[in-house]
Amino acid sequence: MKRLAFLAILLSQAATAQEAEPVTPASIAEAAAPEEWVAIPPEDLLVMDLAPDAAGRARQVIIQLMPAPFSQPWVQNIRTLARAHWWDGTSVYRVVDNWVAQWGAGEDADAGFVPRPLPEGVVSPVAAYEAMLASVPPQTEQYEALSALVNEQLANAEPGTGFITNQIDGFPTEQSTFWDSFADFVTFDQGWPIGNMYDPRGFAWPVHCYAHVGVARDLAPDTGTGAELYAVIGHAPRQLDRNIAVVGRAISGIEHLSTLPRGTGEAGVYETRAEDAPIVSVRLGDELPEQPRFEYLATTSDSFARYVESRANRDDAFYTVPAGGVDVCNVQVPVRPAAL
Amino acid sequence: MKRLAFLAILLSQAATAQEAEPVTPASIAEAAAPEEWVAIPPEDLLVMDLAPDAAGRARQVIIQLMPAPFSQPWVQNIRTLARAHWWDGTSVYRVVDNWVAQWGAGEDADAGFVPRPLPEGVVSPVAAYEAMLASVPPQTEQYEALSALVNEQLANAEPGTGFITNQIDGFPTEQSTFWDSFADFVTFDQGWPIGNMYDPRGFAWPVHCYAHVGVARDLAPDTGTGAELYAVIGHAPRQLDRNIAVVGRAISGIEHLSTLPRGTGEAGVYETRAEDAPIVSVRLGDELPEQPRFEYLATTSDSFARYVESRANRDDAFYTVPAGGVDVCNVQVPVRPAAL
Repeated sequence: MKRLAFLAILLSQAATAQEAEPVTPASIAEAAAPEEWVAIPPEDLLVMDLAPDAAGRARQVIIQLMPAPFSQPWVQNIRTLARAHWWDGTSVYRVVDNWVAQWGAGEDADAGFVPRPLPEGVVSPVAAYEAMLASVPPQTEQYEALSALVNEQLANAEPGTGFITNQIDGFPTEQSTFWDSFADFVTFDQGWPIGNMYDPRGFAWPVHCYAHVGVARDLAPDTGTGAELYAVIGHAPRQLDRNIAVVGRAISGIEHLSTLPRGTGEAGVYETRAEDAPIVSVRLGDELPEQPRFEYLATTSDSFARYVESRANRDDAFYTVPAGGVDVCNVQVPVRPAAL
Repeated sequence: MKRLAFLAILLSQAATAQEAEPVTPASIAEAAAPEEWVAIPPEDLLVMDLAPDAAGRARQVIIQLMPAPFSQPWVQNIRTLARAHWWDGTSVYRVVDNWVAQWGAGEDADAGFVPRPLPEGVVSPVAAYEAMLASVPPQTEQYEALSALVNEQLANAEPGTGFITNQIDGFPTEQSTFWDSFADFVTFDQGWPIGNMYDPRGFAWPVHCYAHVGVARDLAPDTGTGAELYAVIGHAPRQLDRNIAVVGRAISGIEHLSTLPRGTGEAGVYETRAEDAPIVSVRLGDELPEQPRFEYLATTSDSFARYVESRANRDDAFYTVPAGGVDVCNVQVPVRPAAL
């Protein structure tokens, strides 16, 4: 039980940091200093109102758009489409269990979809799903240092404990970085989970986690405009990373998509348009009379580093065996309504 | 782009193995030989009928129970409860988005739950969430060989490619084993994904993936009988591994739980019993006039090993960048209705 001894040390450190009350991820986020939270500009929020449900309850989904350097040509299209009120009157028309809910105009007028020309300037961008990450400098010393550190910890220390480090020389303070099954390593940038590849050019990409939003496309990679979008409603489909543009994440109301009936047509498309969930309107937050105000816990903050460590080593009353590891989609970056 | 060269080799091998048509996980499972499929005995299936939905459609969930050596005291309780028809008239009373749907009698008569004494013999077992795995022999040569192989691959070969091997000397033929963020390594046993810890005693445990079913309990680990169960309806909550008994997985109908409205009361419990989804009956499959017949793809089969490799390296028309890795909950063991 070597690992448990190792964990006990980690936990006793955590206990020293915050005495008395049990430390949970939620309690760490709650105790974070006001300056550790970052406001999300209302113009970076996409507010989607579905028609009320059968019981007459409102259904609003709020999606935070992906910041540069990732997926910006699609994000720009999405801004154009929202400003044109293009999605008003479209619908959620495809829902697949443990996979995605998808919305927009639909492609096939034969199946009862209303053809809807795209606004001028909205075309399919070149399929560039990776970018350089300013917070993880390429060329190449940091990468080599990180590589050496990962490999040393994995090979010589306690194997399999889901390597996490918050101290990498030359990286931003308290950058949380860890091992991953799909990428060389994962980290966080501007509040977003990011996959990374060891490469002198420093390629990085946004990942598919629960509630993340991507650009639906056809088989050819250059066929997605952003007019049809999907949200993940199941286990993270990380195999889609670098194959589709990730453009945002639902920070409020994902349950209005995840509870929709699953489609029984081909590929989970509803068989009739009567089954669709109508979209009343989609607006950027700055166009609304009451602008949505949210903030996220800075992923470079001390509190976020402690939050990740706590996620990996749950120590509150319910947990008797801390995992000693975590995967990137199990570390949900805290997002909350901003105080006025 | 070292990794892409590495993947290209893997993919060209896959292409050699099956010419012409694109190889997908689904096509590999479909092409598996009949003798690679294993029948699930009807008495190992728990058939739960919810009341029809608002549109009058039937809602049946079929749960495969966990085989020995894992969680057997709880599975025994579940068999006793099902034989006593104990769940008939109970309900799904708690649903939390990206977390669980939970059912049974409920604990609190004050909140409108009907008190319901447990059948004789149904008591909380000792909280033993780990066991020895017959298919992965402990003591200690294989573990050491595996450890050396994992560490060598991770340290010297292509880092971060989500290590998978199907050839480990002394392990069952074509056992698929890979790196994991929460366990020392993961493998499959009798069709189930299993976490493993490097230990001379060979501790192993069943993991929490989407649709897996566990025993709800109170804070103390010895407080769950199996009378209250939950199914995972979101990203795999692997931090629950070894903290709760995993007793099964929904192999049909999980969407009837994942689409239920999310609870708005404390911890996602429905605020009134009128919101509950009523459970009409829960039966073991061998008690039904028409016994459910399912089969799973043997996780020791050649086809399963290829299926895992394909999951990690999607190469069909949609995918332009194979991940080169996969996590254990993204490898869903193929289960299908058995031919008669």
